[in-house]
Parts: sequence; structure tokens; C-alpha cells
Amino acid sequence: MAGNSFGQIFRLSSFGESHGKAIGGIVDGCPANINLDLDRIQAELDRRKPGQSAISTQRKETDKVEFLSGILDGKTLGTPIGFVLKNADQRSKDYSKIAQVYRPSHADYTYEKKYGIRDPRGGGRSSARETAVRVVAGAIAAQILEQKGVKIQSYVTQVGKVAVDKSYEELNLSLIDSNVVRCPDEAKAKEMETAILAARKDGDSLGGIIQCVIKNVPIGLGEPVFDRLNADLAKAMCSINAVKGFELGSGFAGTSMRGSEHNDAFVQEEGEIKTLSNHSGGIQGGISNGEDIHFKVGFKPVATIMKEQQTISKEEENVAFKAEGRHDPCVLPRAVPIVDAMAAMVILDHLLRDQASRL
Amino acid sequence: MAGNSFGQIFRLSSFGESHGKAIGGIVDGCPANINLDLDRIQAELDRRKPGQSAISTQRKETDKVEFLSGILDGKTLGTPIGFVLKNADQRSKDYSKIAQVYRPSHADYTYEKKYGIRDPRGGGRSSARETAVRVVAGAIAAQILEQKGVKIQSYVTQVGKVAVDKSYEELNLSLIDSNVVRCPDEAKAKEMETAILAARKDGDSLGGIIQCVIKNVPIGLGEPVFDRLNADLAKAMCSINAVKGFELGSGFAGTSMRGSEHNDAFVQEEGEIKTLSNHSGGIQGGISNGEDIHFKVGFKPVATIMKEQQTISKEEENVAFKAEGRHDPCVLPRAVPIVDAMAAMVILDHLLRDQASRL
Amino acid sequence: MAGNSFGQIFRLSSFGESHGKAIGGIVDGCPANINLDLDRIQAELDRRKPGQSAISTQRKETDKVEFLSGILDGKTLGTPIGFVLKNADQRSKDYSKIAQVYRPSHADYTYEKKYGIRDPRGGGRSSARETAVRVVAGAIAAQILEQKGVKIQSYVTQVGKVAVDKSYEELNLSLIDSNVVRCPDEAKAKEMETAILAARKDGDSLGGIIQCVIKNVPIGLGEPVFDRLNADLAKAMCSINAVKGFELGSGFAGTSMRGSEHNDAFVQEEGEIKTLSNHSGGIQGGISNGEDIHFKVGFKPVATIMKEQQTISKEEENVAFKAEGRHDPCVLPRAVPIVDAMAAMVILDHLLRDQASRL
Amino acid sequence: MAGNSFGQIFRLSSFGESHGKAIGGIVDGCPANINLDLDRIQAELDRRKPGQSAISTQRKETDKVEFLSGILDGKTLGTPIGFVLKNADQRSKDYSKIAQVYRPSHADYTYEKKYGIRDPRGGGRSSARETAVRVVAGAIAAQILEQKGVKIQSYVTQVGKVAVDKSYEELNLSLIDSNVVRCPDEAKAKEMETAILAARKDGDSLGGIIQCVIKNVPIGLGEPVFDRLNADLAKAMCSINAVKGFELGSGFAGTSMRGSEHNDAFVQEEGEIKTLSNHSGGIQGGISNGEDIHFKVGFKPVATIMKEQQTISKEEENVAFKAEGRHDPCVLPRAVPIVDAMAAMVILDHLLRDQASRL
Repeated sequence: MAGNSFGQIFRLSSFGESHGKAIGGIVDGCPANINLDLDRIQAELDRRKPGQSAISTQRKETDKVEFLSGILDGKTLGTPIGFVLKNADQRSKDYSKIAQVYRPSHADYTYEKKYGIRDPRGGGRSSARETAVRVVAGAIAAQILEQKGVKIQSYVTQVGKVAVDKSYEELNLSLIDSNVVRCPDEAKAKEMETAILAARKDGDSLGGIIQCVIKNVPIGLGEPVFDRLNADLAKAMCSINAVKGFELGSGFAGTSMRGSEHNDAFVQEEGEIKTLSNHSGGIQGGISNGEDIHFKVGFKPVATIMKEQQTISKEEENVAFKAEGRHDPCVLPRAVPIVDAMAAMVILDHLLRDQASRL
Repeated sequence: MAGNSFGQIFRLSSFGESHGKAIGGIVDGCPANINLDLDRIQAELDRRKPGQSAISTQRKETDKVEFLSGILDGKTLGTPIGFVLKNADQRSKDYSKIAQVYRPSHADYTYEKKYGIRDPRGGGRSSARETAVRVVAGAIAAQILEQKGVKIQSYVTQVGKVAVDKSYEELNLSLIDSNVVRCPDEAKAKEMETAILAARKDGDSLGGIIQCVIKNVPIGLGEPVFDRLNADLAKAMCSINAVKGFELGSGFAGTSMRGSEHNDAFVQEEGEIKTLSNHSGGIQGGISNGEDIHFKVGFKPVATIMKEQQTISKEEENVAFKAEGRHDPCVLPRAVPIVDAMAAMVILDHLLRDQASRL
Repeated sequence: MAGNSFGQIFRLSSFGESHGKAIGGIVDGCPANINLDLDRIQAELDRRKPGQSAISTQRKETDKVEFLSGILDGKTLGTPIGFVLKNADQRSKDYSKIAQVYRPSHADYTYEKKYGIRDPRGGGRSSARETAVRVVAGAIAAQILEQKGVKIQSYVTQVGKVAVDKSYEELNLSLIDSNVVRCPDEAKAKEMETAILAARKDGDSLGGIIQCVIKNVPIGLGEPVFDRLNADLAKAMCSINAVKGFELGSGFAGTSMRGSEHNDAFVQEEGEIKTLSNHSGGIQGGISNGEDIHFKVGFKPVATIMKEQQTISKEEENVAFKAEGRHDPCVLPRAVPIVDAMAAMVILDHLLRDQASRL
Repeated sequence: MAGNSFGQIFRLSSFGESHGKAIGGIVDGCPANINLDLDRIQAELDRRKPGQSAISTQRKETDKVEFLSGILDGKTLGTPIGFVLKNADQRSKDYSKIAQVYRPSHADYTYEKKYGIRDPRGGGRSSARETAVRVVAGAIAAQILEQKGVKIQSYVTQVGKVAVDKSYEELNLSLIDSNVVRCPDEAKAKEMETAILAARKDGDSLGGIIQCVIKNVPIGLGEPVFDRLNADLAKAMCSINAVKGFELGSGFAGTSMRGSEHNDAFVQEEGEIKTLSNHSGGIQGGISNGEDIHFKVGFKPVATIMKEQQTISKEEENVAFKAEGRHDPCVLPRAVPIVDAMAAMVILDHLLRDQASRL
């Protein structure tokens, strides 16, 4: 059973190699009769596309989404929404060099061993280019959630060793897109930008952490015991290229607290129930409790660097390898809309699943 | 779509409330004609059961598994394996007190709001008692994997603020069960035990971290782009009660490294391919690369504490609440076999999925 | 991917060999807070059980269902409903004879070849005994549907060459259980009974046809293009032991009509929309249209007969074989509640799926 | 959970309205490293396309498939195969007339009621145009099966009241495409053609029956108890537009036979096992037994006729309606490749599922 579909009810199926004719997908299970603003979907894609600023790759991909079905006069039909993004930059570049080696910490080796074949042009299916398809589906989900009052906001909270030291509640999240790093702490954003440029100058790369905050999630989403909301968020995030870790609410820091510090006391104020703290990250027993859902996603440094590295050839002989071309020294800024997208798909899918659990 | 099944091909479906008649499950998709040692399955359950030592709850649950189908004369039939564990400790205790409040950082509130009803007896479905079912299915999977040479070992690497400072490669993993904490670093194990007893004395609780190591996983397991092996491991772990975080290989620490430090160079030595480091945690591009798979799972401190806490009643009025009875001050030692079990199910499921991807 | 689960949202997972310790199942996705009358579930099982009358097998199976979870004080909890039926008649009978041959038109040969192993005791997993599990899950579904006004009624419309020549609308369906054949046409029921007794006397067996009628299905159930309501009904019915055919509405007879005869004209009468005929069988474009859903299910004659037959041994040598023991000469009367059950599961599953398709 | 995907391992997801920009699909789970002849896939589409002969619609659709991913230099990559078929005949025709009525025995009414919206242009998603997508996926599956020796052949065995009276074994199946009806009995094919032309002249339409024969299916395919091979074939066939019935092997005729006539005796001849008759249709206990799989699929007469019919308007008032334009008076000849395609997908999916059931 191959793994190119995501979600149970709101379900994305994805296809495409980075240098094939096109990438694209099908969203099945999108509720009918919903107004969709297609320009805003394109705008989300533009947040992910390469070449946005000096700190990202200078490759040009127009990343223009074309919808083929499922929408009539701006309204969803309840039928599958098919869409494609043509691969503009498909020129006959010379990929013979990467075809001959397994790049360190890339997927060349594992794809070759699993399938007995791989598309060596720019990473093929293992390229992060496929995440553009997720952004399209996620942007559809986000619009539907927005109509329900749910708001998803992600930002870069760490790049390399530069980390924001404020909680999301202390930041003005409307500033996320005010700088190229997508970090709402302007001073830290500057430091991050400097760090990224320094890494690029060294032919090196950086990783980092994205924080995601989801407000106004209805109480009751999540399907214990296995399909807890946090479990499905963890899977969603860990399915993104380069992600190495996920933590909800207090996360790993919470593991060294005592129960008396960590427990979130319930309190009723003027008829409204809330918790005094939110170490739970908005999810208890795998089910949303109405508080903000917040979690962190850790990305490793980009595997492609402009330094010579030791590796093996396709013939399995030891060789030296040095990457060429235009690459992101840090994917974090462009990964923000991908985290947004995956979060939106999980929340909407669970909202629809929850509807199916009641008569 | 409810969430009580796990896995695509090797698939566990689970049922049971903590104080109903029984808990149990069905394993469908278990390969036929496999010899199973049922005593070893029971032995894994015994690693999870309460009352094993002075540091765990003194509740007695016999946790005896009874197999009802799918196995004939010790061999699997290829048909579903049904099994039950009777709830021995089902006496008519008085649960009226917890029935009237929503305990802080428990699932009482979210279950009530989601379903409009809940079983208040000992947590019902949200109780960690359901994990006994996972241990049964996982122990079946582990035996099959073992016949393929795959070995899964988990241990406690942190309790509260006491953390092992050696990597798994520096430890003797055969010592995991040599102490009640299930930490193979004997000195740290002693410290952890002391910390747990101190927390209990205070009526408080601790969290911690479990490290899991999986050796000899065949190259090629994992189904990009969504069902990456790490994504499914993340989901599996985050579906366990009290888990707040998952990190693969270098994890969150890796996010502040540079690419040149983090990349795992491939090298061929006498015909064998390996990587010089293993920050990837044995998975690249979502697919196992033959190196050890290693990851960490973070658990929050136990929500049940013997101190008075603020909370709300079922009538949504502010009340004080103090738990009673026998509870674990720290679940980590008993969670080790659960992590083992979920890991085994994920690896076997992907091994079977991989088989289906080739002709 | 093994095949022992049925349904997407209201989902039954089933286990059990005919002569193992027990058969049973888990219903996941049952809506919460529904009142269930457990006696009526048992009553449905009693309609299926052996030994009800002179025309069925004289084997005694008590077929007593025991619920283990998911129900509290007669109300569903929204959690999985686990249940078992112990195999009472599990005595150490001598099965060495059937273990040594592949009975004609049974599943002995195909199970052995598929799995490399089989449980030879009374058919094992391939025995129709597993359908008792379906009846339990179906009876739960039927009660929920009943609360929505949906009514499912099946009856025997043909046994061997004796066929009812009236449509279901010309019959009084409240008479279905008034005779042992479960045919509401009393005269035909008598003829059928006579035919069954004659076949038994000859050591032979009969097949036949069951008609199912479902009234008051809400408009809009069914998920094109693949999960049409009729496609899922077809699968449900063809998954029952001995079923060889399914036809909706006009069925095969309709294939020789002209469009002008076959089309169901819509008409509005006093604000209510209906069709003047119902060749469509209540489903158009794969979606229920509010008319009665009606279909037929064809069963082959029972494979077990008391006559000598040619077959092969396990060593694949030609041998003669003659069955012994107590067997139904015709399964149709006992299959009625199985058809009811499968129909109920399909309709409820689609009702819940439909709920998930809307916001 | 919407229903636009088919198969568990070899899995087609489909999209597209008949008069949107394009229809298309994604095949996930196609084994890697398989040589595909893309021209033969197009050739199968050509068998389905309109305008092939005087007896089918004169609409022109080029139905040219374009592959976007998953194939490199004629070999499958193991990644999803995305493809599109542009809707050539998308001119701005006037659909206001059908937008205003619910055509009898069409899906207009049920789609409108289910989704609250529908694409009125030529049937939208409910149009049989979507079956072109199935033919593409099925032709891929058929090529893979062919490499395993499996051969699928379907033909028209009845049109209106004209029925072939020979079994498939008495016919020369290489003649299927030798006439426009796709009936290998030349004399009957002529009669059928005459009947179709007569129906067209009357502005009326015909239904009929397709017979499918599958040779050399490996023993052991099918996953009891629910995903029996015959159950999945039944679902596959009943998911095709206009299909009203499915019968395996002896089918409904077999229901009036006695067990002693119906049972298929096993016999061993020179080390090879076979059955003396094949009433089982090649499937026993839901699992293939190595004999030919054969079944029949019944199609209702086409709903679109050129005669005035009674129906209701969108405003739910009684109106008269008469269709216009170019339509097939009988879909059977063009449905042959669709039956082939669905059969191929089921068999390949089960072949891959079976692989996953063994270690």
C-alpha cells in the first residue's frame, strides 16, 4: 500500500516528480457548496515558491495552480477537486552527475534500493517540490476552516542557533509575513537572516524550528485511541521533508516538570470554561479541549551543501561529491506555509470525522 | 471514522474500557504459518502490568491474555487473531466522586464534550489500560520481526530531571530489565528510582523520555510521501497516553547543527555500505537505510496527583479536587513495553507494505 | 491487506473459526448516546441459529452474544463495541476425515493453497458460522436505523425451482417470520418446505433467492463514483457465504427492456416527489432517491451433501468422499437475517458517510 | 468519506466532470520497474471512445491520455502515475434546458439533493465520461497482469432480447473486436446491431449483458471474509454506470440446481488439479481456485431517449421532457473495455494484497 494519500475524509492524493511534466493532486471529500477564493490559494503557493528573497534559492518556479474539476463558478461541487502545477523549469539540464552518486542525507540511496529505479532529475519524487501540492490542498482546507472561525498561524521560531525566547502569546502574529524569515520577532528575524546568509557564504546550510498555533478549534476533535488529534498532527508534520521532530504544548521541556506544575487547571469564568495554563497544547486524551493548539516542528539543516563530502557512487565505490546549482541554505521560511497546510488538512479532516461520529 | 484500528496490513483493532468486562483486540493481516510463542507474549504483558515494583502502582491486574482465534497448535492460520484480557479488578468501587468532576489534564472533559457521555469508572476508554492490548499485538509483531533478524529495544533515558548522558551505543542494552526503572545505566537508574520515590512521597508525579533503538531493519521500508517510516513511527508514539513529543535521530538538537556537521556520509567498506554518522536515525527520505533506527519519545508527568487541585465539576462550577487510590507516580518504566510494541507494529506493517510494492 | 473488516465509518471487524474458542467482533464508529435493546440483538441471532426447525440442521449452537465494551447502562459510549460468542459445540469430534480431503465446492482447497495451513475443524474460518458476528453488528445498525425510520425486510422468494411470482408490494411482509422458510407467501412457503424436505431425503441440497426491501432510506446516500450505494450493497451481499449473484431493482430482467419502458418517470403529487415505477430499485447514479431500495441475492445450493462425490485428497490423489453429520439442506431461511444485517450495515455506514460530506 | 478511489494497494483515484477542463486520475501502488506500452493504453481508450461506429454516439471526443508522472523512459518508478484527459468537446453549448429538469432515471435529482449543487453540463460527474479514467488505470493493470500470464476478455453476450446461447468456451474470443458490437458470435452480433439500429430509429434505447472471462489467475487471490474476490468484483462491476446486476459462474441459474449437480468435483490428472465443471466461476470461499473466473454484468437500457417523458423541473413541478443531441442507443459495445478495466484492477490489487499476506 503506497503512501501518497493523506486524510480520511478530506483526503489529498498527490503525484509528481520535481522534473516530470507536472505535479498535482486530487482532493476528495471536500464538502459541497463552499465558496473558494482561488486567488488566495495561489497566494499561499506564492509563500512557498522559490526565489522570493535573497535568502532562498534563486530558482524560478512559477508554481501556478490550475484547477481541473470539482469547482463550478467558485463553488465546490462535492466532487473531487483535481489540480496540476506544471513544472516550468523542466529544461534538459545535465543530471548525469547526481545520477551517478548517492548524495549524503538525501533519499537517492533509499529510493534506489526500495524501488530498484529512481528519477535522478532533481530528486524526482523525493524533492520537496511535492509539498506545493500540499499547500494547494491545505489552502482549500484553511479557507473552509476560516469560515468556521478556525485560524492557523505558523512562524519560524529558531534558525540554527538563533531562537526566539518569547512564547507565541507574547508575539504579534500578524507580523509573520513582515520579513523574509517569517519570524514575528523582528530582532530575531534579523539575526536569523544574518545567520542564513553566513551559512550560504560558507556553502553550508541551517535547520531550525517552526511554531504552529491554531485558534478556535471546536472542542471534541480527535479519534482515540490511535487517531488522536496530536498523533495525526505528529504524522502530518513528520511527513514533511527534513522534519526530525514534533512536540505538542510543553513538549520535551514538559517531561522534566512535575505533575503539580504541568497540570492545566480547569476554571469557569462567567460561564466559559478554560484552563489556567496550556501545557497540554489544546489537546487532552487525544481530543481538542477548546484551548489554543500549539506545537513545534523541528527541521534538520538542508542536506545539499556546496562543500565537498564523502559518499558512494551508484557502483557503490567511495567518491567525493560537491553539489552545484541554486539551493536554499535554510528551508524554514518557505516551510511555514507547508506546516500551515498540513495543520489545516488535519483539523478539517477531524472536523468532518467528528461529524460522522454523531447522529 | 473512529480511530481504534492501527496499521494498514498488519492491523490491530482494539476495544475496551478500563472497568468494563474486558479489553481486547483483533490482529488482522498477520502472515500465516508463523510459529508464535504465547508465553513470550504474556511475558511482555507482565512487563507492562501494574504492581511490578515499589515504584509503580500497587493495583493488581493479572492481565492474562486469552487467544480466541487465528492460532492453531501454536501456528498462525492467516485468519484474524482475536484475544481478550478480562478486567479482574472490576469490583463495584465508588466512582461517584470522579464522575462528578473533570480532572485536570485528564480526558474526562474532552470525552464528555465529544461523545455526550463517558464511562467514569477509572477513566473508561481513556485509561492507559487499553495499552495492554497494544502490547499483545506488538509482541506478536516483534516475534515475527525477530524471525527476520529485527531487534527492538527501548529504555528509559530520562525521568524528571535525571537524564542519561550516554548515547545508546555506549550502553549495554541487555541490562534494560535489570532494574525496576528499565534504564540500562545502573547509576542513573538508581537516581531515577530515588526521584520517583521522592515524587510519590510528595503526592506528585514525574514525566520523562524513552529511547528506542531498532536494529537490522531491512533497507527500503517506508512509503513516501505521506506514510514515511518516521511519520508512522511519530504517529504510533504520539498515540500513546501522555506522550508529548517524538524526535528521530538527531532530533531537535540536530536543528541547530549545520548541514556539513549533520549530513551522514556514506562509505563502502569491504562491500558493505554504511554511514559514518547516523543523525538521520536510520531513515532517509522516509525510507529505512539499513542503519539503526533510533528515536526518543517524551512523556508528560502523570496527571493524577495526590494534591488538591483546582478544577470544575460536571455542572461546570469551580471546585477543588484531590485524587485518591493507587496510582503510578511515573509511567515511564511501564511504558517501555508499549513503545516496543508500537514500534514493532509499525516496522512489521511497513515490511508487509513494502512486499506489496513489488512484483 | 486482509479482509476481515467491513464498512468505512460504522465498521465491523470480525474474528473466529467455527470450532475455535469463540467468534466475535468489534464495531467501531457506532454513534454515541444511542439506546440499544440487547435482547433484540439476541433475537436476531436466534433467527440465524441452527436447529430452529425441521428443515434446518439439528446442530445445537446457543449463539449467545456477550458484550464486553462500548455500552454502559444500555447506551452506546461512542467507543468500540467488543463482543464474543463462545463456540459451545467445541467437543473433540473427529475431524481427521475432512482434514484429509478437499471437499468439492468448499473452501478447503483454496484456503490450504492460499495460507499453506487451514483449520480443518468444521470449515474453520470459511464456515458460515462467522456470519453470526455479522448478525450482531447488523442488529445494532438496524436499531439505529429504525430510530431514523428506516426499515429493512428480507424474505425467501425462491427455493430450488419454487419461486414466488408476486412482487414484494403484493405481499404482506409482516408474515415473513410466520413460517419456517421465511417466505411471506404462505402457499409458496409450503411448497418450498416440501422441496427442502425432499432434497434432504435424497441427501441433496437446494439453493434459492432472497429478496430484500428497505423503506424510508433518506435521499442522498451513496458516494459516487466507486462507492455507489448499489456497489456497496453488491459487495456486502456477495461477501456472504454461497452467494453467487446480486441484482438491484429490475436487475437482469431489466436488461432486455427498452429505455422507454424502464425509465422511472418523476412525478410531484401534493408537494411530494416520487417515481411512477421503481426499476431503479431506489438508487440512481449510485445515490438513494427516496424510493424503496429493493434487490435480490442468489445463493447456490449447499455444497455439503450426503452423496458420494469425486474429489482429491490432501496428497492430491483422486478419492471418493461422502459427507456425514448434521447439515442444512438449504441455507435460505437462516440466511434471511444475514442479508438483513449486511444491508443495515451498508445503509448506516452510508448515512454516516453522507453526514461527513457536508458542513 | 467520499468514494472516488478504488482498490487497496493498486489504487486509482479519479476526478473530473464531463464538461470541465479535464478528467484524470492517479494510480498509486503500481509496482516499480515495470515496462509499460503507452500506445496500448491509448488503444484501450480508443475502444471506449464515442463515435467508433454507426451504432454509437456521433460525438467526437479524442480521449487522448497524457501521463504526467510516475513513468520514466517507459518504466514505472513506483511513484504515483498521474494522468489527464482534456475535455475537447467543451464548447459553450446551451445546457440551460437540462439544468432546469431532473431527467428520468438519471442522476440529476439525486446529485442535486445530496450535494445541494450539481454541474448540469452533460451530466457532470455522473456522466459515464469518468469511465475513461478507469480504462487508463485498468489498461496499466492489464499489462502487468499479462506479464504474469493473466488474460482478461469481455464481450457482449446479450443486447435487448438478443442473447448468445453458447457458453464462452464454445466461442472464439479472438473475434471480440471483429465487429462493432464486440460479440464474438458473428450471427448474434448482426442481430444485435440490427436491434440497436431499430431502437435508435424509434428514439429508444437498449440494455444488455456483458460476459467476462479471466484465465490463468493464480490460486489464492481473495481476502475472506469480506473482501472475497467475487465480492470485490461485484462491487467493481456495480460501480459502473447503468449496471444493475452481477453474477458469478452459474449465477442466478445455479440457484435452482441441486447441490449434486452444482458441485464442482475436483480431479487430478497427471499431477494437475482441476474441477470437472466450473459452476463456481473460478472462486471458492472467496478465493481463486485456478479455474477460469467468469461472470456476467447486466446493464439497464440507456436512460437518455429521444421520446417525450414525464418528469419534474428543478422547481419540482410536473413537466414533459424530451432529450436532444447525440447519444448512444446502447452502451454495451463501449462498456466492454470498462468491464475489462475494472476486472484488471481487482485482480492486480488482490495479487498484490496476497503478496502482503505471506512472509
